[in-house]
Amino acid sequence: MSTGGYREIDADDYRVLHPRPAYLVVARKPDGGLNVMAAAWVMPVSEEPPMVVLSLDSESYTSELLSENGELTINVVGEEHLEMVWGAGSVSGRSVDKWSKLGLKPLPSKVIGVPGVKGAYGVLECVVKEKKSVGECVLFICEVKAARVREDLYTRYGWDLRKARILLHCGRRAFTVPGKLLVAGGKRG
Amino acid sequence: MSTGGYREIDADDYRVLHPRPAYLVVARKPDGGLNVMAAAWVMPVSEEPPMVVLSLDSESYTSELLSENGELTINVVGEEHLEMVWGAGSVSGRSVDKWSKLGLKPLPSKVIGVPGVKGAYGVLECVVKEKKSVGECVLFICEVKAARVREDLYTRYGWDLRKARILLHCGRRAFTVPGKLLVAGGKRG
Repeated sequence: MSTGGYREIDADDYRVLHPRPAYLVVARKPDGGLNVMAAAWVMPVSEEPPMVVLSLDSESYTSELLSENGELTINVVGEEHLEMVWGAGSVSGRSVDKWSKLGLKPLPSKVIGVPGVKGAYGVLECVVKEKKSVGECVLFICEVKAARVREDLYTRYGWDLRKARILLHCGRRAFTVPGKLLVAGGKRG
Repeated sequence: MSTGGYREIDADDYRVLHPRPAYLVVARKPDGGLNVMAAAWVMPVSEEPPMVVLSLDSESYTSELLSENGELTINVVGEEHLEMVWGAGSVSGRSVDKWSKLGLKPLPSKVIGVPGVKGAYGVLECVVKEKKSVGECVLFICEVKAARVREDLYTRYGWDLRKARILLHCGRRAFTVPGKLLVAGGKRG
């Protein structure tokens, strides 16, 4: 195995920063219905207050919905939700009622008016605080108002990776899940 | 196994959005030396132009350095770099010359004046375009000027997960790596 050789790739080949978690993002439609999309460009950005950022294509339906009604849930999902994520990510909610088509059930939220997805590993209830255009996308800077996790999957150390098969997106149709646990510094912390 | 029960967690428990890739971020010090830190709050945010966002504690040394010299490399690393990442992430470069202490070797960049880390799986050469405060952190919105990958680890489909053991951070000392490959939609894309 060569470890010396590098080759240049296109600067816009974002897969180099994958795999990363793929989430289901739920937003409210103007008619009161719900839309769901798949998103991997989502991350925590601060703790005080708890904030997350989502980068969405500025022409996406969810981007349009969030600009009207700034409430959303971010749903952490697992291997068993693979086809649901693919279904949510490969068609636009402008043409299809994905929520119904995918057979999703709402998990009522505690603080906001948009529900989570029943069965998701974890649900963050978020409110958009600010938007910022970057290239063809929009950063939605959101405050996390409440968070819930499946009690069978989350411990005081975070996700129990023996049970929580967090879905990670590689590129196009390819996904993966976490493998073995590694502990740095020579001991469990 | 119960799948019905949820419990509330603190809204600032960011581990719910982990595991996600842990990177080595290299920046230039005023004395010409190099500093390295570990960061997991990094993601692509657009393709046209190729942009990434890093969220760093506003009081971190790297945050200070990037505010002075806006060039950095983002280095994708793997399981074999676990202790390097832990070493880079658990002390401040204000008190220790981490670059020397960790025995890092520079991989000269093509476009910017800050090198990558030799042996890293992939290196993105970035320039800070804008900063934005969010909570206790600062978002560094960067353009990707060039990207390289180890030719033994990257295919036309992205990372070869049989060989590229991309390091993912769970929380504190806990890390993981990608496990099996999953393909959505019933066939390879």
